[in-house]
Amino acid sequence: METSEFTHLCQIRVRTYDIDSQGIVHNLNFLKYFETGRVEYFRNLGYNLLPTGIFNIGLKVVVVRNEIDYLSFAFLDDLLDIYTKISWIKKTSFCFDQIIKNNKSGITVCKGMGILVNVNSQNKPEKIYQNIISEIELFEKKTIKIIDENEI
Amino acid sequence: METSEFTHLCQIRVRTYDIDSQGIVHNLNFLKYFETGRVEYFRNLGYNLLPTGIFNIGLKVVVVRNEIDYLSFAFLDDLLDIYTKISWIKKTSFCFDQIIKNNKSGITVCKGMGILVNVNSQNKPEKIYQNIISEIELFEKKTIKIIDENEI
Amino acid sequence: METSEFTHLCQIRVRTYDIDSQGIVHNLNFLKYFETGRVEYFRNLGYNLLPTGIFNIGLKVVVVRNEIDYLSFAFLDDLLDIYTKISWIKKTSFCFDQIIKNNKSGITVCKGMGILVNVNSQNKPEKIYQNIISEIELFEKKTIKIIDENEI
Amino acid sequence: METSEFTHLCQIRVRTYDIDSQGIVHNLNFLKYFETGRVEYFRNLGYNLLPTGIFNIGLKVVVVRNEIDYLSFAFLDDLLDIYTKISWIKKTSFCFDQIIKNNKSGITVCKGMGILVNVNSQNKPEKIYQNIISEIELFEKKTIKIIDENEI
Repeated sequence: METSEFTHLCQIRVRTYDIDSQGIVHNLNFLKYFETGRVEYFRNLGYNLLPTGIFNIGLKVVVVRNEIDYLSFAFLDDLLDIYTKISWIKKTSFCFDQIIKNNKSGITVCKGMGILVNVNSQNKPEKIYQNIISEIELFEKKTIKIIDENEI
Repeated sequence: METSEFTHLCQIRVRTYDIDSQGIVHNLNFLKYFETGRVEYFRNLGYNLLPTGIFNIGLKVVVVRNEIDYLSFAFLDDLLDIYTKISWIKKTSFCFDQIIKNNKSGITVCKGMGILVNVNSQNKPEKIYQNIISEIELFEKKTIKIIDENEI
Repeated sequence: METSEFTHLCQIRVRTYDIDSQGIVHNLNFLKYFETGRVEYFRNLGYNLLPTGIFNIGLKVVVVRNEIDYLSFAFLDDLLDIYTKISWIKKTSFCFDQIIKNNKSGITVCKGMGILVNVNSQNKPEKIYQNIISEIELFEKKTIKIIDENEI
Repeated sequence: METSEFTHLCQIRVRTYDIDSQGIVHNLNFLKYFETGRVEYFRNLGYNLLPTGIFNIGLKVVVVRNEIDYLSFAFLDDLLDIYTKISWIKKTSFCFDQIIKNNKSGITVCKGMGILVNVNSQNKPEKIYQNIISEIELFEKKTIKIIDENEI
C-alpha cells in the first residue's frame, strides 16, 4: 500500500527496552506501535480513552485478530512513521490497516492489520453507532461501511 | 485444532504487568507467551539460545509473519497452557502453529501462527540444515518438509 | 545478604524481549522479576491474586518505594534465582528485601528493596490485619512487626 | 524538588499496556519513562544512541542503582511531564534526579534517582571525558563535578 492511501500519521522513537537479543526491535513491540497509531487516530477524531480503557464517546473495543508482516529491521533510536487507516466497517467490527516506515530512509519496516470488535459493558459484540461510522467515513473520505446487516 | 495435534506443552502465569486498562491480558502479551512456547519447544530438542540470540546449533531465526486470533479473555494470575507444533518446513522457513488455553477451564484463549526464516550472519535467508529438518520431523512424528527447492 | 537469610526462592528464565540494545537484561525487567518473587512468596502463604489485582484474603497493596542495585549483568536464557523475604512490618506498610542470583554461577545479579503499603478500596493506607502479620512472622520464623502504632 | 531546579523536560503519554490489574500505571513503567527522559536529555546535548546502545560520542553507560518513590497514581492516557537533571558527576559515575508530574493537574506522580557508570568496551568503569563533564556543567549552569579522583 502507498502511504498516500493512509489517513493518519504519527511517530514513535525506538527505545532501548524495545530492542532484543539480536539487536533489533523485538517483533512484539510493533503491536505497541500499531496500538499507538490507532489510539492517536481516534484522538484525532475526538475520541479519547478514559482510565477504564473505554473511549469517552462510549466506544469499547477489543482486538480479535492481528496479522503482521515484518519486512525489515528497526533499530535503537530509529524514528518510525506509523501510518494508519480504517479499511472497512461491518455491523459490530472494523478493520485497521497500518504500515510502519523508517522516517529517515523511507523503508517499510512492517505492515499490520487488526480487526476490532465493538463490545458492550458485558463484552458482547454490539452494533457500532451510526454517528461513529459517519465520522470515520467522512475522515476517510469514502464509504467504508459494508452494508450487510448479517455480517459480524 | 485439537490439543492432541500439538507436540509440545508449557505453561506461563499471567502477571500484573501483562494486564491492561480493561482488566484483561493485553493482546501484545500473547506474542510473548507464543515466543516462550517456541523457545521451550526448541529447548526440548536440545537447541538453546546463546546471549547473541542465536541457537547453540547455529540456527538463527527471525519472525517474518504473525497471525493471532484472540478468542477469549485471559486474566491476572491465570495459568495458561501454551501448545506448540511446527506445521511445515520449506527451504529457508518454517511455520509454528500454537494455541493457548486456560489451564483450569480448558477454554481456548487464542491461537497463533508464526512464520520464521532461517538467516545467516548477514541476516540473509539461508537453507535450513538437513539434520535440523530431520530432528524436527522425528519429533513431530511425521514428514513436514515441503519438498520444493524453489520455495522460500 | 546471605541467601540463607531469605525465606523464599523461585526462578525465572530470561527471555529475548528482556534483553536491551547492549545485549544484557534491561534494568527495568528486574522489577518484573522482583514482583514475580513477591507474588510467589504470597502464593506460598495461600494469598492468591484476583483479577482485580487484590489478594483473595482482602489484602490490597501498592508499591511506594523501590531501591535496586545492579551488581552484574544477566543475559538471554539465563536461569535466575529470585530470593525473597519480608524484613519488617509497620502499621500499614511492610518491606520486601530480595536478591537475584545467576543459578549456574551463583553470582549475584542485583538486589532490591520494596516498600509496600496496605490500602483500602479507596486506596488510603489501612492497618494490616493481625492474622496476616502473624502468618508472615511465623513463615519468617521471627518477630518482624515493629511495634509502634504511630509509624506508617 | 521544585520543577525549576530541573533542566530538561519531555513528555510521554500513558498507553493501555502501561496499565496494570489495579487500573493504574504499573510501577515498573516509570523506569521506562525515566529512561526516556535521560535519553532525551542527552539528545538535547547532541549525544545520540547508536544501534549498539552506545552514544555517538563514545559514551557507554550502565545503570548501577535506582531509587524510586511512587507518590500518586498515573492513569491511562495521562500526559506526563518528565523533569530531568544531572545532580553530580564523579570520576566514573554520575547521578540523574528526575520527577514525573501529571501535565494537567501538576500533581507529582513519582520521583527517581539513577546512578550511571561510564564503562569501556569491556564494561569496566572508565573515567568520564572532561569535555562531557564540561558540556553537562555548562548545560546545568553550575559546577557539579565532585573533585575527588579517588571516588568512583
